[in-house]
Amino acid sequence: MSQQISFIALDWGTSNVRAYAIDAEGRIVDEVASDKGMGKLQPDEFEPTLLDLIAPWLSDDGTLPIYACGMVGARGGWQEATYGQVPFDVHRALKLTKVATSDPRIEVQIVPGLCQSAPADVMRGEETQIFGLLEKYPDFEGTIILPGTHSKWAEIRSAQVTGFKTYMTGEMFNLLSQQSVVRLSVAEDGWNEDAFLTGVKEAMSAPQDFTHLVFGLRAKSLLAGLTPVEGRAMLSGLLMGMEIKSGMDSFATGQVAIVGGAKLMGIYQAAFEEFDIDPLCDVDENFTVRGLNLVAKAQKKGVAS
Amino acid sequence: MSQQISFIALDWGTSNVRAYAIDAEGRIVDEVASDKGMGKLQPDEFEPTLLDLIAPWLSDDGTLPIYACGMVGARGGWQEATYGQVPFDVHRALKLTKVATSDPRIEVQIVPGLCQSAPADVMRGEETQIFGLLEKYPDFEGTIILPGTHSKWAEIRSAQVTGFKTYMTGEMFNLLSQQSVVRLSVAEDGWNEDAFLTGVKEAMSAPQDFTHLVFGLRAKSLLAGLTPVEGRAMLSGLLMGMEIKSGMDSFATGQVAIVGGAKLMGIYQAAFEEFDIDPLCDVDENFTVRGLNLVAKAQKKGVAS
Repeated sequence: MSQQISFIALDWGTSNVRAYAIDAEGRIVDEVASDKGMGKLQPDEFEPTLLDLIAPWLSDDGTLPIYACGMVGARGGWQEATYGQVPFDVHRALKLTKVATSDPRIEVQIVPGLCQSAPADVMRGEETQIFGLLEKYPDFEGTIILPGTHSKWAEIRSAQVTGFKTYMTGEMFNLLSQQSVVRLSVAEDGWNEDAFLTGVKEAMSAPQDFTHLVFGLRAKSLLAGLTPVEGRAMLSGLLMGMEIKSGMDSFATGQVAIVGGAKLMGIYQAAFEEFDIDPLCDVDENFTVRGLNLVAKAQKKGVAS
Repeated sequence: MSQQISFIALDWGTSNVRAYAIDAEGRIVDEVASDKGMGKLQPDEFEPTLLDLIAPWLSDDGTLPIYACGMVGARGGWQEATYGQVPFDVHRALKLTKVATSDPRIEVQIVPGLCQSAPADVMRGEETQIFGLLEKYPDFEGTIILPGTHSKWAEIRSAQVTGFKTYMTGEMFNLLSQQSVVRLSVAEDGWNEDAFLTGVKEAMSAPQDFTHLVFGLRAKSLLAGLTPVEGRAMLSGLLMGMEIKSGMDSFATGQVAIVGGAKLMGIYQAAFEEFDIDPLCDVDENFTVRGLNLVAKAQKKGVAS
């Protein structure tokens, strides 16, 4: 196995870690995953965790390069990696942060995140997906949306990330649906498209009412028979409406690409239909691996940072 | 003791319960409190909890009226009480909900909450404070703000509650400061007025950015040296800015009264100075007891509901 492997791509987030063995043609030849995310590890636990994960890929007669992205490079992670400042040219080679490791079979380098000073914002991991998407669509001009716990909207102009905004859409959904007063009015599962779109429209037309509209889910369930499934979809709609209103005000022109799982992309697409926007969606691609392939190629070429 | 007592005023919220022994002149002659809030009790635990609390006030030769307000009357509380629908005339006698009790020394009745169908909203407990404030200031016209876990803004016109809105300001502050990604950038204590006012202004000028601005606290602490004390005040400011923007858009004219503890009122006052509004503040008054006095008087007069 190890002879086929050119490098290891490592996507190490807060909750999970995924490792991919990549061959000389940039193809995934094997992959492994575990729930040992950065949030659960102390700095000295990263190397043994990684070695456990990728043991079958290692051999004693050589050092395998490992390119990592995500929260592994955050303060409090394995080793704090730098940030590239926007505007950031994705064709520029990346200033990787080398991690001190004791096993001679591996050499780990972490991709920098991106930062923006005004408005203050940071990303770690999504920048690699953006690099990957821009390799596939080199002429893309517009906004890339990366939905999730902390959704990112990034503006792309002439292959540069010119600006971005993070929205706590997923995290607020989890906190509010599980721990706030409206948890009693929000089901754990299920979906209602009408309730979702009502929430999107309510938040978009009066975003200043956000904390009132969230409480309104409780009131509607007490007074107007809102079902918990409707409550769940409407809460999602309120948060998505805030995100879309802000994102569209901030990044108005050009194409829109949504990068994420099919379920989340479907939710965004339903909301975007309201604006007659037909986003470019690409679910079948692992843009993190594609991005780390770019990083690996740039390292081989030895392009200066 | 019991001979002096005309009735018991009971303020039974989610987290705490406070009982006041009231004499024939409406004065508090004794008071007790405990942390046995509605949220911690099953329906059959309310009566023994109450009897424990007020035992010294009871005598065997008579039945003491008890007027209760707050979440004790919510679904899942002691007994679900009705809601009065806005617009609601505070001079109208209240349709109390009698609670089935087994001890002959007490007769418990719960004050209705208020509800509003569009936008859907409910209150339980704050209506009694509003009644109390309007007894003290009968000519009040404008907006009463009741800060808290679920802040209420209520519009008063000709002694009627004509509309209101609830904001999850306090609850969201607790969730975000203790459990979200920004907890790392938010101190448990401390205050910074400039950071607070920056947060107020940022949220007011771009409320659609709310979930982005909250994440920005984390980014500012990583990139720009925002201290945890500043982060705490700024998070409070962001939530308060949302509340004030929505409240002022919804209830624009007339006086503004803030009912609450001195600390919270000071926070609102600092924000309102930005608008040259000098709110009527009254910290020394227990408006719940004053409101329940009104209820007791109305019951004695036997005014029909």
